[in-house]
Amino acid sequence: MSQFQLLKTEGHARRGIFYTAHGSIQTPVFMNVATQAAIKGAVSSEDLKDLHCQIALSNTYHLHVRPGDQLIRDLGGLHRFMNWDRPILTDSGGFQIFSLAKLRKIKEEGVSFNSHVDGKLLFMGPEDSMRIQANLGSDIAMAFDECVKIPSPRKYVEASADRTYRWLVRCRDAWLHYKKEEEAVNPGQMLFGINQGAVFHDIRREHMKRIAELDLPGYAIGGLAVGETHQEMYDTIEVVEEYMPSEKPRYLMGVGTPGNILEGVYRGVDFFDCVMPARNGRHGHLFTKNGILNIKNEKYIRDDSPIDAFCNCPVCQRYSKAYLRHLFKAQEMLAMRLAVSHNLAFYNNLMQDIRSHLEKGTFTEFRGAYSKLLDRRI
Amino acid sequence: MSQFQLLKTEGHARRGIFYTAHGSIQTPVFMNVATQAAIKGAVSSEDLKDLHCQIALSNTYHLHVRPGDQLIRDLGGLHRFMNWDRPILTDSGGFQIFSLAKLRKIKEEGVSFNSHVDGKLLFMGPEDSMRIQANLGSDIAMAFDECVKIPSPRKYVEASADRTYRWLVRCRDAWLHYKKEEEAVNPGQMLFGINQGAVFHDIRREHMKRIAELDLPGYAIGGLAVGETHQEMYDTIEVVEEYMPSEKPRYLMGVGTPGNILEGVYRGVDFFDCVMPARNGRHGHLFTKNGILNIKNEKYIRDDSPIDAFCNCPVCQRYSKAYLRHLFKAQEMLAMRLAVSHNLAFYNNLMQDIRSHLEKGTFTEFRGAYSKLLDRRI
Repeated sequence: MSQFQLLKTEGHARRGIFYTAHGSIQTPVFMNVATQAAIKGAVSSEDLKDLHCQIALSNTYHLHVRPGDQLIRDLGGLHRFMNWDRPILTDSGGFQIFSLAKLRKIKEEGVSFNSHVDGKLLFMGPEDSMRIQANLGSDIAMAFDECVKIPSPRKYVEASADRTYRWLVRCRDAWLHYKKEEEAVNPGQMLFGINQGAVFHDIRREHMKRIAELDLPGYAIGGLAVGETHQEMYDTIEVVEEYMPSEKPRYLMGVGTPGNILEGVYRGVDFFDCVMPARNGRHGHLFTKNGILNIKNEKYIRDDSPIDAFCNCPVCQRYSKAYLRHLFKAQEMLAMRLAVSHNLAFYNNLMQDIRSHLEKGTFTEFRGAYSKLLDRRI
Repeated sequence: MSQFQLLKTEGHARRGIFYTAHGSIQTPVFMNVATQAAIKGAVSSEDLKDLHCQIALSNTYHLHVRPGDQLIRDLGGLHRFMNWDRPILTDSGGFQIFSLAKLRKIKEEGVSFNSHVDGKLLFMGPEDSMRIQANLGSDIAMAFDECVKIPSPRKYVEASADRTYRWLVRCRDAWLHYKKEEEAVNPGQMLFGINQGAVFHDIRREHMKRIAELDLPGYAIGGLAVGETHQEMYDTIEVVEEYMPSEKPRYLMGVGTPGNILEGVYRGVDFFDCVMPARNGRHGHLFTKNGILNIKNEKYIRDDSPIDAFCNCPVCQRYSKAYLRHLFKAQEMLAMRLAVSHNLAFYNNLMQDIRSHLEKGTFTEFRGAYSKLLDRRI
C-alpha cells in the first residue's frame, strides 16, 4: 500500500496526505528547516506547533559532524533529542559535503572531505549516509547524491547522474537493511530518490525514468535553485514531472520564494523546503500578503499595527511593527525570534491556503493573483 | 492606605503583598530585567508568564535614548508596547548615565552626558527622569540619584548623598504632578526613594532617615553590588534596614546571586533585581539546587537528564543537558533562550521557595542550608 493518498488534483497541482511513522502530513507542505536539530533564530520545537509546522527537516552532514549521529541514536534518536514528535525528514548530507566542507575527492565508493568544524578527514558514501540517517531515525531519509553546479559541462553532468543512480541502488539496499535491524530507531523510515541532471532536459528525463523503476516511497527533484533562472527551474520541473510516479509524493529541494512555491505546486510538486523564511527573518525581511517588507525601515517607527493584518500567527496577534523595529534597532535577540516565527508561520499558512484552494478548485486563480505579488519588495 | 501588606515575619525577613495598578506582587520577589523592553536571550513577554515572572524591570535611560519615551507614550505606554500586562518597574536612568554614557558634568540641576548610541549631548535631571518614567507608564518609578563608585572619598559621598536627597524632593514633586495629569499613561504610578552613601554607615543612616520622612510608597537601597565585598554589603543593609519604614517595601538594587538574595531576605529586603540569571545563562552557566553548572562541560555530552531534576520549568520539562550542550557547541541561538529561560525560572522558583518557607516559619533553616550551596560552581 502507498504511503501517499491523492485527494484531489487541479491541472498538475495535487492535494494529498502522506502517512509517516510520526503522523500524517497534509500536502502540499513546506518543511521547516532545523539544520542542527534546532530552528535558527531561537525558535523552539514547541513553538513550531504554534506556527503550524507539520514536518521539520534536519541535516545529516551537520549532525554527523556534531554532536554525532551515534550519540543521537544512543539518546533515543532525533525526535527525542530535539523534543519533536511530528515527522522529520533528513537530507543525505551530500549537498553540504559538496557546498560546505572542503572537498577532497569523489570516487565511485563515495566522497572524502574535511569537516568544516575541525578539519578532520571524513568519508561518506551511500551506505554511510543511510546508516547515519538510520541512527537519526528520521521518517524520510534522502538518497545520497551529487548536486552538480549549474552551469557544468554536459559530459560531467551525464557521468554524475549515472553515478548518482548507482549510489541510489546502494542507498536502497542499505536502507532496506538498516530499517529491518532489530534495534532500528525508526523501522518505519522511508527513502526518497533524487533526480539530478542540472538543466539538461534529456539527462533529467532519462535519470527520472531510471530511478522511478526502483519503486521508492517518494521522489525529489534535486540540484535546482543553485543559480539557474526561475524559468529554467520551472521548465526543468515540467520536464521531470511527467516521469514522476503520480502515486508518490514529489519534493522540490531547497525551493524557495512564496512565488516559486505557488509555481511548483502548479507544476505538480507536493513537498518544499527552504532556509529563506528563517534567513530573511533574521535580516528583518518579513513576508506579508502584500509582499516582503523590511521592518528596519524608518516608516515603521510609529506603526502600531501587526506585520500582516491578515496573519493569525502568535507574533501578529501580540506585537506591533514599531516594537519589532525597536527590537531590531536595539539588536535584541528577540527581534530575530519574532521575525523568524512570523515568516515560518507565513509559509505554513500559505501552504494551508494552497491546500484550501486546491480543495475548492480555485488554486489556479489563487496562483495567478499571488505568484508575483508575494515576492515583491514593499 | 498602604500599597504594601505585611503578611508574616521571621526575624527581619518579611512575607508580603504589594499592590500595583497592574496587579499584586507576592514578596519577597525577584524582578526580571527587560532592559530595552525585552528580556535578553530571545525570551518573550509571553514566556515570562510560563517562567512565573511577577514583575519586569526596564531601563529609563535605554528607552529614552531608543526608541524614545514619547514614542512609547504615543503607542500607549510600555505595557502595551512590549505586550506585558503585569507590573513594571523602571529605574531612573541615573545608574546607566553614570556607568554607560560618556559623562559630561554633574550639576545641581542634573547631569549632561553623551548618548551611548549616537553620541548626542543629552541632559537629565530629576524632573526629566520622572517625565520619562511617566511617559513609559511603569507601575513603580525610581528616584533619580547618583550611584557613587566604591571606594569614593567620604567628602564626595556626603555631598552626593545630600544632592541625591534634594533630587528626591524634586522627583516627588514632579511625580505628583505627572500622575495627576489628565493624559497620564499610568495614574497609579508609584515612586520609590533610593538610599545612598556608599559603605559609610553614618551617611547611609542619616540619608535613610531623611528620605523616610518623605513618606514615599517604597524605598530602595542603591549603590551596592558595585565592587564592595559581600560582607560590606550585608553590613550596610543591616545599618540601613533599621531606619526603613517597616510598612513600606524595600528593594535592594542590582542584587544578586541566589546566596545574596537569601541573605538580603534574611536582613529584611522584599525586592531584588539582577542581570545575573540572563547573563550567566547566555554563557551557559545554569543555576541548580546543587550549585551552578557549566553546560558546555564535556561531561554533559551524553547526559540525558534535565538541567535540574527538581525544576519544573518548561526547559527542564522538555530538554536534556546533552541537547542544551549541543545547542551551545553548535552556536544555535536557541541555546541562549533555553538557558536564560531556565535561569529566570530558577530565580522565580527560588523566591517562591523563600515565600513558602516564610509562611511555614522555616526560612532561617532554608537560608542556612542553601545560602552557600546555591552559589558554588559544580
